[in-house]
Amino acid sequence: MEKFVPETKKDAIRQVMLASRILANEGVLDALGHVSIRNPENPDTFFQSRSLSPYEITEQDILEIDMEGNVITKTDMKPYGERIIHAALLKARPEMNAVFHGHPAAIIPFSITGVPILPVTHVGSFLYQGVPVYDDYEPGCGMLISTKVEGERIARHLGNRRVHLLRGHGCNIVAESIPAVVASAIYLRDNATIQFQAMMLGKDIKCLSEEEAKQAMEKALFGELPLMRMWGYWIARAKRAMPDLA
Amino acid sequence: MEKFVPETKKDAIRQVMLASRILANEGVLDALGHVSIRNPENPDTFFQSRSLSPYEITEQDILEIDMEGNVITKTDMKPYGERIIHAALLKARPEMNAVFHGHPAAIIPFSITGVPILPVTHVGSFLYQGVPVYDDYEPGCGMLISTKVEGERIARHLGNRRVHLLRGHGCNIVAESIPAVVASAIYLRDNATIQFQAMMLGKDIKCLSEEEAKQAMEKALFGELPLMRMWGYWIARAKRAMPDLA
Amino acid sequence: MEKFVPETKKDAIRQVMLASRILANEGVLDALGHVSIRNPENPDTFFQSRSLSPYEITEQDILEIDMEGNVITKTDMKPYGERIIHAALLKARPEMNAVFHGHPAAIIPFSITGVPILPVTHVGSFLYQGVPVYDDYEPGCGMLISTKVEGERIARHLGNRRVHLLRGHGCNIVAESIPAVVASAIYLRDNATIQFQAMMLGKDIKCLSEEEAKQAMEKALFGELPLMRMWGYWIARAKRAMPDLA
Amino acid sequence: MEKFVPETKKDAIRQVMLASRILANEGVLDALGHVSIRNPENPDTFFQSRSLSPYEITEQDILEIDMEGNVITKTDMKPYGERIIHAALLKARPEMNAVFHGHPAAIIPFSITGVPILPVTHVGSFLYQGVPVYDDYEPGCGMLISTKVEGERIARHLGNRRVHLLRGHGCNIVAESIPAVVASAIYLRDNATIQFQAMMLGKDIKCLSEEEAKQAMEKALFGELPLMRMWGYWIARAKRAMPDLA
Repeated sequence: MEKFVPETKKDAIRQVMLASRILANEGVLDALGHVSIRNPENPDTFFQSRSLSPYEITEQDILEIDMEGNVITKTDMKPYGERIIHAALLKARPEMNAVFHGHPAAIIPFSITGVPILPVTHVGSFLYQGVPVYDDYEPGCGMLISTKVEGERIARHLGNRRVHLLRGHGCNIVAESIPAVVASAIYLRDNATIQFQAMMLGKDIKCLSEEEAKQAMEKALFGELPLMRMWGYWIARAKRAMPDLA
Repeated sequence: MEKFVPETKKDAIRQVMLASRILANEGVLDALGHVSIRNPENPDTFFQSRSLSPYEITEQDILEIDMEGNVITKTDMKPYGERIIHAALLKARPEMNAVFHGHPAAIIPFSITGVPILPVTHVGSFLYQGVPVYDDYEPGCGMLISTKVEGERIARHLGNRRVHLLRGHGCNIVAESIPAVVASAIYLRDNATIQFQAMMLGKDIKCLSEEEAKQAMEKALFGELPLMRMWGYWIARAKRAMPDLA
Repeated sequence: MEKFVPETKKDAIRQVMLASRILANEGVLDALGHVSIRNPENPDTFFQSRSLSPYEITEQDILEIDMEGNVITKTDMKPYGERIIHAALLKARPEMNAVFHGHPAAIIPFSITGVPILPVTHVGSFLYQGVPVYDDYEPGCGMLISTKVEGERIARHLGNRRVHLLRGHGCNIVAESIPAVVASAIYLRDNATIQFQAMMLGKDIKCLSEEEAKQAMEKALFGELPLMRMWGYWIARAKRAMPDLA
Repeated sequence: MEKFVPETKKDAIRQVMLASRILANEGVLDALGHVSIRNPENPDTFFQSRSLSPYEITEQDILEIDMEGNVITKTDMKPYGERIIHAALLKARPEMNAVFHGHPAAIIPFSITGVPILPVTHVGSFLYQGVPVYDDYEPGCGMLISTKVEGERIARHLGNRRVHLLRGHGCNIVAESIPAVVASAIYLRDNATIQFQAMMLGKDIKCLSEEEAKQAMEKALFGELPLMRMWGYWIARAKRAMPDLA
């Protein structure tokens, strides 16, 4: 059994690699997008792949990066430009240990229409705080978050929530652990798909109440038993699809 | 040829395992959700996997459980919390031998909009009695059905029907056999997808009449010839996708 | 190179088998549905599989059947109940050599809403004669076409067209050859998907004119070069997905 | 690392083969459609496969063709009829080295409804010049572009843009390199899917401004780092799905 929050660098690096493969295999990430984990041996750095598609990442591709976005690992491998997002969010949210940045197609319509994403299913319960849309891009950066100033602005915009969208681009997610951030990314996508269809069917959508959402988060989504089952499932699927993992 | 209703524990356990793999392979179940079968050697117990994704289940993971939800098998393997649903439905419906609980995305919009699922295709004929939506969750349980009292409420809500939805969560299905419950789960999903598109196209949807539905159930869906063909097909596909089954 | 219209029983049987595998592999057929080919050595019989999913069919499963639906092959293998459709259409349309009956989900909404399928793409050009919806089911047959009387009614309803829908059930297609009937089934599905989305986007849909459609049929769809390319492509994909074919 | 613009015929031929396989593997091309690359050793000819599905193309299938559409390679292999499109566009656009012609389903609704494709995501930024719809087909050609006159008309219609649609048929795309044309084809499809859903959700869609689009093209889409990541990703996926490539 993989521990949810690893105690060693080695286990943290393995979790980032597995999360990347899983998110590629489940169709949540394509060539672009990335995940990171806080270094369990030093809370002021984090692990993230070099600039590479999540589908291809191995443990040898993982870099150690600090909260200013500096690459600590002695290497000439190139980091992602948007490592800034991960640095800024892990710095601003010490209670969180994992960050996701990606562009699942199902969520982007909600970022360009003013229609908010709502918690409509028990696996979307973690969205109950609301999902605001960031639209304050630094001019000249091509809608990529790549400067320290914009990283801090992103962190302020997310506030104490778990998820926000970036207009015409994608989303950022924070969670306590890698399995929880992977579950959040997959179920954000699924909740958006279901909400879209529900809004096509009828105008009165019944969402989870705040009380229901908090309970569902605790018992049905991020509870130890369901989260272990999900994590094991996604690994099993990734191993069948990607024989080099087995 | 697999018998539709097995005569031995061993064959029943194999059917639960196959149904789990099939439903994972056909995209009806993901990490969550489960099926069960009444014990053919003791109608007061049933077989269901330990807490594990349907994708990964083997015959060694199947537990025997009684109608109060107690695990009979001597083991320290953990059962699903929602085994309560299966216990309550198999107790309330002695003519049925198999139960499905899951969360196919295509059906959930119908659970939160007040728009009813209707039998619009011959393979959706088993829905002719109506598909009510349960929305009387026990407070504090996170929308999971995990107490005996709520299990009984669920059984009363289903009544003499085959399918009901759980608001913002998923559905329960009962059937006479494992192949019939698997067919019901797959075609509930397909009927919902088709109905959704039909409702987008036009306001006047022609459904099956009750007479048509009853005949289609008997001849086109749960008849021996079509059901054998479906079951063989789903097994053949699962075996190709999951080489350990072959 | 497979010939489009085979000259021998052996080649005809192989084409039915390949078409069945292709249509399963392309997601047009699931457990149900079937194709047939006129016997090139006797125009009064045709070849079709025994009652089996198209995904699993081998050359050993193919039966010879006459235009009344009688099984000519000496065997105790069971035929499809709906072989009646194939017998009736091949009898009524001597210029056609192949029949498809199936239930692709994308077309069924058009069968229950009164919204007609229209030729909106060059690969949907063969639909220019219109796609009527049959809704005159024999009572008591469960919406299956299984009597000689209803087979004849089906043939009259199709008339001189290539495709019609069966309300809440599926469609029948006729064509000059197995590759052409496979192309028709796949592109009927694709044209329906595209038309559905177009109707969601706007109310004024520009269809192919009759003149455009006739030219596109001849040059872009059923011309020797494109049809050979399609047929080779579908076989190559089926062989990769189904190693027993290779 | 594959170079973006190859320097030799051999490398150019390999890129056309890889692009064809990638586009088949990503579901952008099926049996029909094709890509081409300008000959790096002679700007007045280009490389393109013989008439074959992109899924099956090997380096042995690539022909050299001149800007009038004449096959230069000594061979009896048959070229695509629509090589005319590639010849006309490469002749008219000397700054471009790669052409895509195909029929991704998600774009066709925009070609028959008068609803324009808009740049709604950062990976759709290359669409900022507008995506006009060609509807001036030569009578009698079945909506295929197969005469020199119509090729020139197509080139004039595209003008200085990167993409246009062909009504009821598909699209043409030009780009500086094969990786860029592949990215354009994949993200045109994804942008269309997202725009479609956004238009279903709300009437006020926020698009990229021209300034945002130009910056995003340069930094997020066709920049060396992201484009290398995409190209490597698509190749890795194609190699896993098509073992003969590895």
